[in-house]
Amino acid sequence: MTTPTNERITPHRIRIFDTTLRDGEQSPGCSMSPQQKLVMARALDELGVDVIETGFPASSQSDRDAMAMIAHEVRRPVLAVLSRCLAGDIETSLRSLEAAANPRLHVFLSTSPLHREHKLRMTREQVLESVHKHVSLARSHIDDVEFSAEDATRTELDYLIEVARVAIAAGATTINLPDTVGFTTPEEIRRMFQQVIAGVADVGGAANVVFSAHCHNDLGLAVANSLAAIEGGARQVECTVNGIGERAGNCALEEITMALKVRQAFYEQDTAINTPRIVATSQLLQRLVGMPVQRNKAIVGANAFAHESGIHQHGMLRHRGTYEIMRPEDVGWEDSQMVLGRHSGRAAVEQRLRALGFWLEEEELKLVFEQFKALCEQQRVVTDPDLQTLMQGGPSNQGYRLASMTISDVGSRANALVELSDPDGNRVAETAQGDGPVDALFGALSAATGVSLQLDSYQVHSVGIGADARGEANLSVRSQDEVLEGTGTSRDIIEASALAWLDVANRLLRQRAAAESSSPATTAATATA
Amino acid sequence: MTTPTNERITPHRIRIFDTTLRDGEQSPGCSMSPQQKLVMARALDELGVDVIETGFPASSQSDRDAMAMIAHEVRRPVLAVLSRCLAGDIETSLRSLEAAANPRLHVFLSTSPLHREHKLRMTREQVLESVHKHVSLARSHIDDVEFSAEDATRTELDYLIEVARVAIAAGATTINLPDTVGFTTPEEIRRMFQQVIAGVADVGGAANVVFSAHCHNDLGLAVANSLAAIEGGARQVECTVNGIGERAGNCALEEITMALKVRQAFYEQDTAINTPRIVATSQLLQRLVGMPVQRNKAIVGANAFAHESGIHQHGMLRHRGTYEIMRPEDVGWEDSQMVLGRHSGRAAVEQRLRALGFWLEEEELKLVFEQFKALCEQQRVVTDPDLQTLMQGGPSNQGYRLASMTISDVGSRANALVELSDPDGNRVAETAQGDGPVDALFGALSAATGVSLQLDSYQVHSVGIGADARGEANLSVRSQDEVLEGTGTSRDIIEASALAWLDVANRLLRQRAAAESSSPATTAATATA
Repeated sequence: MTTPTNERITPHRIRIFDTTLRDGEQSPGCSMSPQQKLVMARALDELGVDVIETGFPASSQSDRDAMAMIAHEVRRPVLAVLSRCLAGDIETSLRSLEAAANPRLHVFLSTSPLHREHKLRMTREQVLESVHKHVSLARSHIDDVEFSAEDATRTELDYLIEVARVAIAAGATTINLPDTVGFTTPEEIRRMFQQVIAGVADVGGAANVVFSAHCHNDLGLAVANSLAAIEGGARQVECTVNGIGERAGNCALEEITMALKVRQAFYEQDTAINTPRIVATSQLLQRLVGMPVQRNKAIVGANAFAHESGIHQHGMLRHRGTYEIMRPEDVGWEDSQMVLGRHSGRAAVEQRLRALGFWLEEEELKLVFEQFKALCEQQRVVTDPDLQTLMQGGPSNQGYRLASMTISDVGSRANALVELSDPDGNRVAETAQGDGPVDALFGALSAATGVSLQLDSYQVHSVGIGADARGEANLSVRSQDEVLEGTGTSRDIIEASALAWLDVANRLLRQRAAAESSSPATTAATATA
Repeated sequence: MTTPTNERITPHRIRIFDTTLRDGEQSPGCSMSPQQKLVMARALDELGVDVIETGFPASSQSDRDAMAMIAHEVRRPVLAVLSRCLAGDIETSLRSLEAAANPRLHVFLSTSPLHREHKLRMTREQVLESVHKHVSLARSHIDDVEFSAEDATRTELDYLIEVARVAIAAGATTINLPDTVGFTTPEEIRRMFQQVIAGVADVGGAANVVFSAHCHNDLGLAVANSLAAIEGGARQVECTVNGIGERAGNCALEEITMALKVRQAFYEQDTAINTPRIVATSQLLQRLVGMPVQRNKAIVGANAFAHESGIHQHGMLRHRGTYEIMRPEDVGWEDSQMVLGRHSGRAAVEQRLRALGFWLEEEELKLVFEQFKALCEQQRVVTDPDLQTLMQGGPSNQGYRLASMTISDVGSRANALVELSDPDGNRVAETAQGDGPVDALFGALSAATGVSLQLDSYQVHSVGIGADARGEANLSVRSQDEVLEGTGTSRDIIEASALAWLDVANRLLRQRAAAESSSPATTAATATA
């Protein structure tokens, strides 16, 4: 286990601690499977984040599975996991961290009067004792320990300093002071960091401690508060891609990164983020969790650089800087609009697939590239949705496939006939009636596969305009505690809907198969723990 | 024409200048018809904004029409229109303002070196002369004149003070210092306001001038910068509902308002905004322009108060304030979820219709209420989409109506047969083929109505879950320089798509009819000007 001590004292380098997979993922509609978390972790690694918080191992098997997969593959960034101040949580977390190249244990406890009284039912002294005990326990096993004082911005300042002193004395190497409810102002948080940092200066080891900000966006101030925390001495910022997270979300990674970059002369700080990867990473997350950003979202929204496409019509735009403080290519917009065609090579296809979240082995890539070439014979350009369609029917996917479909919609009743090939290659056909063609279609698919889905949301939109336009359908389904998302694209939105339905159904069937085959092993592991 | 002089010097009251209809509306995908602008202006009036900027009259007939309609009906707030520093613009604006109860003329000119050199090709002296000349011209006709120094935050401070002095001496009653490109930081903008306000203090009349902030969100700092401007002495904030606007948009009205309210003890400022109207106003705009906010949007996103619905599962939520700094009802979330049923009275239906943008005359309301009661016999609850469907077929709508539709979708070709009743009540039937059912459907509708639509975007999503679920289709179409949006809802998404298509086509036909009948009058008016 290595502690990056040299980096700790770099004065002009802000560490980016990404919590998309933990604080982001635990917000409504954003849950990810371990496989999806792995895909996102690879992208965060390429993006250049310093720390990836992968989850809260004590809370779920899914978070433990995700950490195991990520630790195996993602070796550069520090990997952090969250723990309450409970010995059991810490033990579970330590086991999860064993496979990581650069592990960090992140323990937290609430410190504000409101949380002490109503959530913890603990006195000031009990909180201090718990911090000392659990940070010491963590530090006895691992060199890199972060302590978070939950609801720090609503904690009495003198007491917050006391808590930080205890955590540092117990061995915490990072102290995080979160604005848990998104309540603070830039002025206040700057002062809080200045005063806490001054208040712990005489504690042994304090000079090597990194102070960290974790801001929520309830009043739209998360980025400004994170910047003010930096002005106050913070050298780590906790953030999420697209600002996803509880309620109004967290500080957006892309906004804090670009604010520091565009205004480097003012803040005199920089990050290690590879900014041209920002848009691809944002779009990957949007697809993985099915949560699009609004058009006017800073940096990554479709309109963020819309002056590029002829909005300032007055013909007065003679200098790029007139209405532009950064270039679209600085954050990767141009890459993101890259389309492939018959002249694209295998490397270009591989790069594009990775941006879409598909990392293929050599043999698989060869096969997909052949299919790509065949598709180029049929159409002028191959877009991201085309690649996704191709991957959905690709070699890594086993399950039900759509063979044909017939819909009729007359008066108030619609009829659907679907023909599928099942995982063993046999044909199954079913019909159903419904209020509309999609209702009928889903009924027929359900009858043919034996899978019943409770739809949480269903959307169709067109991708592209004119002759190349395609419909993309997105479904989300709640199954037990998890949300499953599916996508399908086709020139025909009813067919796109069928593909999206089958995408979800096949995932569900794969999950069930995996759970059945792995459950004896899980039981054994629990028994020996 | 009245000048609200007493209000100008209220030290703890921030004026909310809403520019949703001007800066918001000119961003891609957000254009509104005059009728839509009127609907939004009524809602802004109810919300309690101090100033509504209705448009840029010199730029389009549509903005002039909107102003005429709004001025006639919306009498409480100040109504402002934008003008370049050109005599012709100012004349057009003055004519537009004639009908307003509380008119404001808003003139602007760029002041930064980059804009002077590359956009205006004017020297410092020429800019000063133009400001003096055009503010004087405006003020010779109207008491309430706002001057904006475009790109103020990138203007040399001493020169910016000079510009402000000239504008005030020429009679400007509000001085706006915009962060046009979203570049500044809270620290910088606070200092800028302090220094400009100090730098003009000796100019006659300066004590009564209101300073105004207008911040863009390119780096995610628009709200924080507006708050910092207030700390620096600004007493007016320019903002838009949902933060819509050029590129990453403007300061969001709902965020700045709630930040000032929640942190009143810190900022010691308040607004006149009726905050329980916030969510309804936000949702109205989302529907009008077809631009949804993301789920984690502060205040108005679906997740903003999601801890209310069981997210903090740990059972530790014993006190509301633990994770909550404002209540959903403070911003109108509870009202927005109100559903109507057979026990709802006419007042409740009227209120709900107004929130949806429908303001009906007594007679019309009576008719719609009867239809509502009939609908209650058929279904348990009546939701917003139901009311919209009802209004689409309601008495105020003339045009093509869908009588029946038959779709078949077999293999790679789909067929559609539509039967419509035309505006005179005659039946027309047409068939068409297409790549998918929607393609075929739109072809048949086009053949039946003689209208050809170029689709800009097409989306379908489900509203509600389970047995009460309905599909809502949204279309947007570019016609000349305008974007037209249409909506349709039905249990059947193909039917919803047909209704949305007809919604747009009927609007287009009404516009054409209006243009034909009004063009001689317009010509006459121009000739006498």
